[in-house]
Amino acid sequence: MKLYDRETSGNSYKIRLFLALLKLKYEKVTVDTAAGEQKQAWFLRMNPRGQIPVLEAEGKYIWDSTAILVYLGRRYGGESWLPLDAADMAEVAQWLAMAQNEIMYGLARARAIVAFGRKADLSEAQAAGQNALNVLEQHLQRHTWLAVGRPTIADVACYPYVALAEQGKISLDPYPAVLSWMKRIQSLNGFVGMPGLRLV
Amino acid sequence: MKLYDRETSGNSYKIRLFLALLKLKYEKVTVDTAAGEQKQAWFLRMNPRGQIPVLEAEGKYIWDSTAILVYLGRRYGGESWLPLDAADMAEVAQWLAMAQNEIMYGLARARAIVAFGRKADLSEAQAAGQNALNVLEQHLQRHTWLAVGRPTIADVACYPYVALAEQGKISLDPYPAVLSWMKRIQSLNGFVGMPGLRLV
Repeated sequence: MKLYDRETSGNSYKIRLFLALLKLKYEKVTVDTAAGEQKQAWFLRMNPRGQIPVLEAEGKYIWDSTAILVYLGRRYGGESWLPLDAADMAEVAQWLAMAQNEIMYGLARARAIVAFGRKADLSEAQAAGQNALNVLEQHLQRHTWLAVGRPTIADVACYPYVALAEQGKISLDPYPAVLSWMKRIQSLNGFVGMPGLRLV
Repeated sequence: MKLYDRETSGNSYKIRLFLALLKLKYEKVTVDTAAGEQKQAWFLRMNPRGQIPVLEAEGKYIWDSTAILVYLGRRYGGESWLPLDAADMAEVAQWLAMAQNEIMYGLARARAIVAFGRKADLSEAQAAGQNALNVLEQHLQRHTWLAVGRPTIADVACYPYVALAEQGKISLDPYPAVLSWMKRIQSLNGFVGMPGLRLV
């Protein structure tokens, strides 16, 4: 397998983290997104959306971080990381949606503005990010993991931009249950980090 | 089953459409989102995110439109609407991600600004929406359905806000392959519409 990624990308880190948890070997290809390589023809042939990460596997190009987590979970994780029961799968999918919506357009966006100079409204992004953290905090006060009582791709999808939130000047201190969950993720066998993560 | 929804919500329509395609009976509960009912305590107990739609099924509350599509597809659709093969499921998941990202923050947002007075940057939303339509157009020039060669929840997830795009003052005329795909969806057995859809 070959992963097209960039070290500082939280979406790419989701995949590196999950590959490490699954103990899978892969080749890494760094895409120079600052130079716009992801919008060049060779990249758009792999991913019409022009975004990293892309996973090359089984002769196919799988784009979108959530789709790649689904692929790896189904292909290598049995029913452990992505359960097949309808209600259980939907429970995982709920938090995958949070990762793609509030977490992406709140926490990840705030980080992109502060750390990478992206032009967008910082206070709007921070407010959306805090909303996401409030929902997570409330849920994690009563649950060890986001879905179905064990680690799933829901945790892997939500963790990176939560743990990177302080790069967007959003403090995690008001969210003790979120911090405890982060610590449980860090303790998973095979865990790897990335620069800028708040480690607990 | 009970669906908490609102007639004008494209995310709620995704579920009504899929329930109709699956020929499932359900009870509808209208949530007065204009009056903020979705932020009241009784609703937040069902969905901490405070958003419609919510599906009540098997004694559980399933929130998030994508998660509900996953639930219904797995529970009632065999492998037809949501395949279980890893690469096939990932192919579906790619377009679910498009529905939740570019389509939501482009097409749906532009519609919310124009039709419901939401305060946000219209030209930014329209540009993001056109990017999504360009990706769809390019893909649908070579494919009949978004994923795995047959109708899946990927089509159901992407269709509503595409077919509602003109309510956000984004013309669909430049996208003939998208219009043909819309026509194929309209022709599916059991199809139902909603106000504001562009019918082909």
